[in-house]
Amino acid sequence: MAAWGERLAGVRGVLLDITGVLYDGGEGGGAPIAGSVEALARLKRSQLKVRFCTNESQKSRGDLVGMLRRLGFDISEGEVTAPAPATCLILKERGLRPHLLIHDGVRSEFDQIDTSNPNCVVIADAGEGFSYQNMNKAFQVLMELENPVLFSLGKGIHSFFFVARTLRRYYKETSGLMLDVGPYTKALEYACGIEAEVVGKPSPEFFKSALREMGVEAHQAIMIGDDIVGDVSGAQQCGMRALQVRTGKFRSSNEGFLGFRGSLRPKGVRETPLETSSAFSPGGQSGNPRSPAPASPEAAEPWDLARFG
Amino acid sequence: MAAWGERLAGVRGVLLDITGVLYDGGEGGGAPIAGSVEALARLKRSQLKVRFCTNESQKSRGDLVGMLRRLGFDISEGEVTAPAPATCLILKERGLRPHLLIHDGVRSEFDQIDTSNPNCVVIADAGEGFSYQNMNKAFQVLMELENPVLFSLGKGIHSFFFVARTLRRYYKETSGLMLDVGPYTKALEYACGIEAEVVGKPSPEFFKSALREMGVEAHQAIMIGDDIVGDVSGAQQCGMRALQVRTGKFRSSNEGFLGFRGSLRPKGVRETPLETSSAFSPGGQSGNPRSPAPASPEAAEPWDLARFG
Repeated sequence: MAAWGERLAGVRGVLLDITGVLYDGGEGGGAPIAGSVEALARLKRSQLKVRFCTNESQKSRGDLVGMLRRLGFDISEGEVTAPAPATCLILKERGLRPHLLIHDGVRSEFDQIDTSNPNCVVIADAGEGFSYQNMNKAFQVLMELENPVLFSLGKGIHSFFFVARTLRRYYKETSGLMLDVGPYTKALEYACGIEAEVVGKPSPEFFKSALREMGVEAHQAIMIGDDIVGDVSGAQQCGMRALQVRTGKFRSSNEGFLGFRGSLRPKGVRETPLETSSAFSPGGQSGNPRSPAPASPEAAEPWDLARFG
Repeated sequence: MAAWGERLAGVRGVLLDITGVLYDGGEGGGAPIAGSVEALARLKRSQLKVRFCTNESQKSRGDLVGMLRRLGFDISEGEVTAPAPATCLILKERGLRPHLLIHDGVRSEFDQIDTSNPNCVVIADAGEGFSYQNMNKAFQVLMELENPVLFSLGKGIHSFFFVARTLRRYYKETSGLMLDVGPYTKALEYACGIEAEVVGKPSPEFFKSALREMGVEAHQAIMIGDDIVGDVSGAQQCGMRALQVRTGKFRSSNEGFLGFRGSLRPKGVRETPLETSSAFSPGGQSGNPRSPAPASPEAAEPWDLARFG
């Protein structure tokens, strides 16, 4: 697999999705995906620039980073590109006062934003907050506006929900796909005859802001995520290379996914970012962090990047 | 306005929407729209065939007709074309077992339907039943199916909600637009990458079943409703004539409504079906029910059917 080195030629920066790549969420805070703490540590010891590009919109950046650090990840708040702070910048620039249909966990990001007499709506992954009453309120606010403006923090279709609970010494596992912000955004778009402005992946503007903050051009960067649309297709359309991991919301049916018009063959991708970073820096903990070597045949073998954009 | 008679030439049947045309809903059962009880009585005394074509899917036909009869309307269950019974016929024909995301008030319509081990989803205007939990359950059922089938009972965008409550001798009025089944259908369509089969207006199949049951051809029928998309545009696309009343969910902004590509000028339409039926039978209560006379100039004046399809 000599081609492996060529495929990563010129890569100077790595954008990492968080949920489903570094850790799996769930009640009680979630757990690291096996190998990902070490993978990130190795990536950070390489010469590659690393930045985190997430659509997380149920938690503030502070809470997210605090949780990840407790799980052992080497991450700081300034390294994270996230929809809520990006939206606050836009609201301030345009003098907009939002009605917020968001999760309480992310509300603190909007502390400095005037929400009186709203002239736009911000919708994020509100989870249980997507009640009929709350959706109706957002709908009514939009319908009262002469020029309704709707911001959607990402346009995710679903998230993968996993809970392991100890109950009388038994583990009860509840797992399944859960509706994300995208379908609810579609509902309001249809109800009001408008189109939302998406702040988050797969919006090109969002990827570009992450690249700017990392100081790397699109053709020099690779995005690693679990979402075939939000991460892989979105990054490719932005001129970046992209990898899908087999963890998180990855499903084998992604290969025939309706919404994806890409040329990726997900069957070839790796299961954890651990292997990802070993491809960049095969020496692992004993490798020379200053000279990222070409990938070893062993590391490259399971990948199938032949059709990556 | 001699053209009035020409415009209604050959009309043999009238399809009437119910909510927003005959009565306005709300807590406590709703109230007749002024003049509509008499208008319906007059229509029924004419030679015209009359049928009711509703997207009501929060109530069973029995409950709906019972309520309307108590309000004074001359209506029987057999005269009503409604989405829930139409859906039951389709489910039986195709051997489908639905997961029901519907309002409790309409659940009795599905009493004879097998809902075990569901292989499709039926979504209707569930009101408060559109919780995050219920939407998620429907989403998960669809995602488990190899060939997901979703039936939507109508595709309404919003309903007009009006409540008048007596409270310490004061009337408290709560009114506003409320999300209907359409946006929630869109949400599931987007989440699952599928397209729903709509049972109800504006589906041509639904209008055709109402015409069949009335025994009248499309070009011989006129639809009277308050919804510019579901009633007016839908009926026109089916080859019928159509009128929009100014009651119910009518809004003056309908004239520029995004979803409507018709040629109607709503500003010219009448406020209640009272005038509608007087156009067909100007003699009113003293007229000859066996010979519908051409419309009088007085009755025709406020109409503007110049651009009706």
